[in-house]
Amino acid sequence: MALTPYQQLEQEFRRLHAFRSAASLLRWDSAVMMPRGSSELRGEQLAALETESHSLVTSPRVSRLLDRAEANLQGLEDWQQANLKEMRRERDHAIATPQNLVSRLAKATARAEIKWIEARQKSDFSLFAPHLEEVAVLVRNKADLLGKALKLDPYDALLDEFSPGMTSAEIDAIFTTLGRRLPSLIQEAIDTQAKHAPLEITGKFSASKQRHLATELMKTMGFPFDRGRLDESEHPFTGGIPGDIRITTRFNPTDPLTGLMGVLHETGHAMYDVGLPEQWRGQPVGRDRGMAMQESQSLLLEMLICRNRPFLRYMKPLMEKAFGVAGPEWEVENLYRLLTRVRRSLIRVDADEVTYPVHILLRYELEQEILKGELKIRDLPEAWNTRMGDRLGVKPANDAEGCLQDVHWAVGSFGYFPSYAIGAVIAGQLYESLRSERPQLDEEIAAGQFGGLFDWLRQNVHSLAASVSTPDLIRNATGKPLSAAAWLRYIEGKYLEL
Amino acid sequence: MALTPYQQLEQEFRRLHAFRSAASLLRWDSAVMMPRGSSELRGEQLAALETESHSLVTSPRVSRLLDRAEANLQGLEDWQQANLKEMRRERDHAIATPQNLVSRLAKATARAEIKWIEARQKSDFSLFAPHLEEVAVLVRNKADLLGKALKLDPYDALLDEFSPGMTSAEIDAIFTTLGRRLPSLIQEAIDTQAKHAPLEITGKFSASKQRHLATELMKTMGFPFDRGRLDESEHPFTGGIPGDIRITTRFNPTDPLTGLMGVLHETGHAMYDVGLPEQWRGQPVGRDRGMAMQESQSLLLEMLICRNRPFLRYMKPLMEKAFGVAGPEWEVENLYRLLTRVRRSLIRVDADEVTYPVHILLRYELEQEILKGELKIRDLPEAWNTRMGDRLGVKPANDAEGCLQDVHWAVGSFGYFPSYAIGAVIAGQLYESLRSERPQLDEEIAAGQFGGLFDWLRQNVHSLAASVSTPDLIRNATGKPLSAAAWLRYIEGKYLEL
Repeated sequence: MALTPYQQLEQEFRRLHAFRSAASLLRWDSAVMMPRGSSELRGEQLAALETESHSLVTSPRVSRLLDRAEANLQGLEDWQQANLKEMRRERDHAIATPQNLVSRLAKATARAEIKWIEARQKSDFSLFAPHLEEVAVLVRNKADLLGKALKLDPYDALLDEFSPGMTSAEIDAIFTTLGRRLPSLIQEAIDTQAKHAPLEITGKFSASKQRHLATELMKTMGFPFDRGRLDESEHPFTGGIPGDIRITTRFNPTDPLTGLMGVLHETGHAMYDVGLPEQWRGQPVGRDRGMAMQESQSLLLEMLICRNRPFLRYMKPLMEKAFGVAGPEWEVENLYRLLTRVRRSLIRVDADEVTYPVHILLRYELEQEILKGELKIRDLPEAWNTRMGDRLGVKPANDAEGCLQDVHWAVGSFGYFPSYAIGAVIAGQLYESLRSERPQLDEEIAAGQFGGLFDWLRQNVHSLAASVSTPDLIRNATGKPLSAAAWLRYIEGKYLEL
Repeated sequence: MALTPYQQLEQEFRRLHAFRSAASLLRWDSAVMMPRGSSELRGEQLAALETESHSLVTSPRVSRLLDRAEANLQGLEDWQQANLKEMRRERDHAIATPQNLVSRLAKATARAEIKWIEARQKSDFSLFAPHLEEVAVLVRNKADLLGKALKLDPYDALLDEFSPGMTSAEIDAIFTTLGRRLPSLIQEAIDTQAKHAPLEITGKFSASKQRHLATELMKTMGFPFDRGRLDESEHPFTGGIPGDIRITTRFNPTDPLTGLMGVLHETGHAMYDVGLPEQWRGQPVGRDRGMAMQESQSLLLEMLICRNRPFLRYMKPLMEKAFGVAGPEWEVENLYRLLTRVRRSLIRVDADEVTYPVHILLRYELEQEILKGELKIRDLPEAWNTRMGDRLGVKPANDAEGCLQDVHWAVGSFGYFPSYAIGAVIAGQLYESLRSERPQLDEEIAAGQFGGLFDWLRQNVHSLAASVSTPDLIRNATGKPLSAAAWLRYIEGKYLEL
């Protein structure tokens, strides 16, 4: 029997998934296993798979099949209609950027990334500036084309790639609230904590002991080690594909908490992937719902669940056993204070959850001004340093700890930064609903029972995959549109009361 | 400027290479890194890449471009003309087997392999027989179609897949010589060795010490660890791709010699891949010249170079240092005897180099009879056991150590076995030429200098890649057509004189 246009599309997107999932494993391999000298060759492999994927999605055949499938939705189940929408979304995104621009952008960002590494090492922005300029021009060009095709503002079109359905209007509203409340909240938190300085942890903790404890925690949370791995790499990430999830972290021998929290953060990502519906696997509707949702899952687990007293009550004896330690610095209350310290600091990735959004607000503002041409690249360092001082009261001594600290702009990821802070805000809102529907949550976590937590997340977030937009997903899960209110309540409760 | 048909073909085959090289890394990952539960998913990924590759090679576009490029060879360099020939070869092979047969064979062999594992564990041939029957019927079908398309005898068409240009007529001639000489040669070798029984090695040798020594040897030989790795897996193999070569081995804590020889065997394969011309990479002409040539390189290094006195003189102090050992069993002459022991044994993969071809002659004979329908599958165990007794004087007590020991037939690899013995014979002939052109070879090896060895191999074998057929490659390198003479001289010199 002949396949319907929709069925043919499913076939085409399964092929796409094969390319992408191969690429995903190869990227994991690059970071964890690959010998250094093979990176150029690996780059070519990945570029070839990328080109293949792009030409598949933008093929006339796919466009034709989409038109025909959309013209007759009869007989399609809801998830299939949602799948069709995601296919269309993907095709429209991909086709809006001509192949010529895609490859110019690929080359420019490859060059810019290399120069960024050098400039950061030497803390010399001038080495990077012309390359960032080139990337910004091309991204602006792409944003214009994408915006026209999707009928969105150029910046919103970029946002839509990372967090489908989110607009800068929504983000503005949330960030304005945060921008108003955070300066005083940060000061209040610091003042509150000043009365109870934690004891520092000292000693050496072997990577193998840290890995053993991390593995134990992951198992307890339900990470399927028969369908996933934990490895080490320079930058922690969650890679692989659903069904074969590869987490990485970095263990610091003098600081066992950071590596562990890194693992728990990635486990949050991983559990999202684990919870995606198996029957939608390989189809666009079966993927996660973008970066903000991903970040909400990692932050919810790391920040809201694990950097909290009930979890630390559970973890304390495990740590004592794993490292053969005891003493006042290992008491729950001290661990809690160590893991929730608020500090005015310069580096985003090391920031605590209270000051973190300030780092994002700064970048969100700057990247929009760059794209609009309101901020000249050469003026970026000064703008960064001045506003960092204004907003957080600290000023970078050099560009390495200022505007050169992140790779995102070098690789063309404008519109990505907001998803970190929006992810936190989503986590706060989900957490509030979760707690009200599951009042026994704290007791469960303290007993090392994570089933209830993940059941709720699976039912309200994971199992929906990409079948609804980011805002709809949040409304469905929490009964409210996204706002900063719940997150602020959570932060105030955690940091202003000790 | 518009691309010529030949240039367009290069593009198409570069795409093919991207799929295949991704698949190759994924297969390495399956054996070394992948969690067990992900194997079904990985199977689907590999099948998707395989299907993609097949449909690319058999596409009407490639056929059209081949016709047009072949019609006008003007302006093509020699290597490009050779490349065109290899493209044609590949297309003709792929198109001769209809997609329907390809997928029936894929399914039948997947089932047969699972049943083979079970049957081997239980040593119960009856579990495997119907599945082998099914595979044999499909392979026969494929051989007929392939033979017609390539104008070759059916079995020769299968051979051509593994060792391009080799025919059963050539193999028959070589195997007849071996079959005549080996029975008495084996007995003479055993008698000669009986006078000098080696001392056994006892003790425990940690995997990490073995790995350290193996890595040191690989480095000395020129294996590029910045573009390759050594790992452990259940079955040793050389995977990855040129430019990112992944060797695996297995270390036995009570037997340090076998693991080490395994590494050296795989290093022989790897150095072949290392020596393939970089400028042909990604094109059919840039690949190795099939399984017999591959095996000649691994056997030359393992058997002819490393299981020999000059190499052992070099390795002795390294072993003593690596394992902290000394004593008569670690003397060069004793190591040499341990590593060259001839025994009438049942298992091919454990066989010494003198009896090894007998195992192959048996399989070569049996697989042809199976394909011709002269030998019924149900009669295979008896035929195997009887002929094993006749040829080697040992008889399997059960089918696990008889006709169930190898996976090849289960996965449809008929025509593969001869390449092992032909590889040995090629190694013998190359070695004779190499020694006569490089009389200082033994001194170099004893001094740990492998540059001369690999220079010769690179110049005479590796750098030609797939630009000539297997027989031509051997004629070019040695000045003679392939025959068993040199190998027999080598074996007689090594095993009949002590």
